Amino acid sequence: MQSFEINKEDLLRVTTALEGTDDELRKVLEDYHASEIAIIFEKLDQEGRERIINVLPVEVASEVISEMDEEHHPEDILFNLDPEKRSEIIEELDYDDATDLISQLEEHEQHEILENIDHEDATEIRSLLSYAEDTAGGLMNTDVIQVNVAMDKKDALEEIIRQSEEMEDFYTIYVVDDREILQGIISVKDLIKAKADAKVADLVKTEYVYVKADLDQEDVAKLISQYNLSSIPVVDDYMRLLGRITVDDIIDVMEEENTEDILKISGVSEDEELSGNWKDAVKSRLPWLIINLGTAFLAASIIRGFDSTVAKLSVISAYMTIIAGMGGNAATQALAVTVRRISLNDLNDKQAYNTVLKEFLVGMINGCANGIIVFCVALFYDANPMLGLVLFLAMTGNLIIAGLTGASIPLVLKRVGIDPAVASSIIITTFTDCFGFLLPLWLATKLLL
Amino acid sequence: MQSFEINKEDLLRVTTALEGTDDELRKVLEDYHASEIAIIFEKLDQEGRERIINVLPVEVASEVISEMDEEHHPEDILFNLDPEKRSEIIEELDYDDATDLISQLEEHEQHEILENIDHEDATEIRSLLSYAEDTAGGLMNTDVIQVNVAMDKKDALEEIIRQSEEMEDFYTIYVVDDREILQGIISVKDLIKAKADAKVADLVKTEYVYVKADLDQEDVAKLISQYNLSSIPVVDDYMRLLGRITVDDIIDVMEEENTEDILKISGVSEDEELSGNWKDAVKSRLPWLIINLGTAFLAASIIRGFDSTVAKLSVISAYMTIIAGMGGNAATQALAVTVRRISLNDLNDKQAYNTVLKEFLVGMINGCANGIIVFCVALFYDANPMLGLVLFLAMTGNLIIAGLTGASIPLVLKRVGIDPAVASSIIITTFTDCFGFLLPLWLATKLLL
Repeated sequence: MQSFEINKEDLLRVTTALEGTDDELRKVLEDYHASEIAIIFEKLDQEGRERIINVLPVEVASEVISEMDEEHHPEDILFNLDPEKRSEIIEELDYDDATDLISQLEEHEQHEILENIDHEDATEIRSLLSYAEDTAGGLMNTDVIQVNVAMDKKDALEEIIRQSEEMEDFYTIYVVDDREILQGIISVKDLIKAKADAKVADLVKTEYVYVKADLDQEDVAKLISQYNLSSIPVVDDYMRLLGRITVDDIIDVMEEENTEDILKISGVSEDEELSGNWKDAVKSRLPWLIINLGTAFLAASIIRGFDSTVAKLSVISAYMTIIAGMGGNAATQALAVTVRRISLNDLNDKQAYNTVLKEFLVGMINGCANGIIVFCVALFYDANPMLGLVLFLAMTGNLIIAGLTGASIPLVLKRVGIDPAVASSIIITTFTDCFGFLLPLWLATKLLL
Repeated sequence: MQSFEINKEDLLRVTTALEGTDDELRKVLEDYHASEIAIIFEKLDQEGRERIINVLPVEVASEVISEMDEEHHPEDILFNLDPEKRSEIIEELDYDDATDLISQLEEHEQHEILENIDHEDATEIRSLLSYAEDTAGGLMNTDVIQVNVAMDKKDALEEIIRQSEEMEDFYTIYVVDDREILQGIISVKDLIKAKADAKVADLVKTEYVYVKADLDQEDVAKLISQYNLSSIPVVDDYMRLLGRITVDDIIDVMEEENTEDILKISGVSEDEELSGNWKDAVKSRLPWLIINLGTAFLAASIIRGFDSTVAKLSVISAYMTIIAGMGGNAATQALAVTVRRISLNDLNDKQAYNTVLKEFLVGMINGCANGIIVFCVALFYDANPMLGLVLFLAMTGNLIIAGLTGASIPLVLKRVGIDPAVASSIIITTFTDCFGFLLPLWLATKLLL
């Protein structure tokens, strides 16, 4: 089975059905999974979307809304629905999904929505809205299955079945005391297997991984991945159980963090939406380009300082662009490997030292290899072995600088608490551009003129 | 709770304990989770590692080995253990983990290991070894909980408890017929909640997502993420149940694929290990640098074609490096956004067209903005408004080319079935370098000389 991709036939089928009766539309929609309808939704106008939400059973409608890509603004669709339908859908959503949607709206819109839903749900959502979006609290779902540590097997099983009524899936059962303080975890399997007179207190596993509500979502993802967890409980400062984060929430976090990494390293601001419009893109990228223009003038001023060398040896002008460009690419290579490595695992001092040493070596070897090629070109094409020597030395030198800066700048940034991915290629290539011009021009001035 | 990072105290505690008795060592190790010991392992020598594996209970020892980062070659540690201990550990491992480890060994080593373990386990591992590593078959675990569709509630529950004896966690129960053909899925919750005389056949959910064993792991990850699954069954061409893939296996796949993307886009071959040595790094990066050197000569040959322009107007030589460099950075921005977007979602024709159009616009606007700055510098610093005009036009033109190539080259590659991430910055900057030299030199020749 392949991942669902919307094709013309599916879209045509749905748009045709949109012109028929409700029953016809409902019948066609039955052939699609909620997450598939969410993709088809992206191609429809507001009227069509509203019509579909209205004919779908509320369980499916709420799933469609929660499955939509946030770039297509599901919160606006939700807000523009008939208020009664809207309240039904929100009450059907998991609290964390409802909160994510509502948090995207203006304050008066949030207020209007929360006024019109069940009081208990509104209280829950208001409390979730208070956590920062990228922390454990912002990520967690407050729907957890929990049993009291004082229960016996029979009561615990009944309680689990009762609480699971409204949940799709559940993983771990959390054990709390009378004050909601988390005592440990227990698996359904162990409970089923236990003797009839077993107590929860005997079965509870008291060694488990948990997180505080204010932990950064990236750290939550690392824990879940490191300990192979299917879910992790979230607690407050008094160890009171607040909710749980499941591994499928983490998949979205990982995609988000990886997008941020790849954008930042390429000099794009991390909050540019991939499918955003040109205005957002200009706003996100122009500042970096202007910084780069500043550094480019710095590099170019080096060339101006060697005006007489360029005038006497005009061929150097073409060669130095090669050396600067090669340095930029070698630095980008070293940078990508180092940034990705830091983002998967922190490096200790010795590993950091070894990384820089390795990139120095790699720069030297790749520099010599490419330097020999440039030497040969200067020798055979320009018939100028001394020029070849200048170029060989400059190429080797610049690729060493590329390796050193590509590895050490992100490492230093990480140490001082700055995200290493902002050591984007734009920053790093400033060094390789400057030295890419300086080395050949200075060496040529010393050795050739 | 923070993700575990090895620190000097932990390492010192373990290395000190390694000099004491087995009991002392065991006592210290009890304070650490298996995945933590796996990290400490990375710092120890073979002797220390072997000693630890030997004192640990086999359940923990096997978990330590399976949790180790593959870059530290756990398969070598495993192979070098005392054969009896080795067999115990392999028999304790999940089949998929055992297969992953064994697949990294030489054929004669594989043979030696498989000869010495339980015959049934060996057969299972041999069959898993036949699937390609990056497919559903290579990723799946053959330990699944399955019940026959003809069973009633009581038998099914007993069967589940019996089968789950050896499993840590289980998610979905798979329902098969007498020929092992997958009929559907069932949740433990539904089974517990069902009436005492319910039959599996009445409870089975026949709509579910499954994959064939040869599906690429990246597509498996997309399905699991799209449908929010906790696990997915793997079947052969006859719908016979072969195994299951769980969401935590997918986290590793996603990290791997993201590493590959970020490396490829930066001109590093995808199989370079992040913590590999300098020899691997040279092998992975030098070929790309040599390709880049070829394209750099191409760009430089353009400069040589305008020798007389450079000689008459030496100041152009500094400015053109700025225009080429800015183009390279703008292209990298467009490339990063487009590649990441394609890797999360395929784009249809209209979306692809809109993406290119957007990048054209962004290139034009960013080009004009930076062009104005360069114009001002030429006007006030060089007192040459015509030079300013040349530079303004060249900057705008080159940033338009940057946007167009950065967006369209990965899109075209994707259409013809090549991984869009190989449209690395090295390829894209060839265009921006060539046009970055050509545009200012040609315009200067036409308008200034």
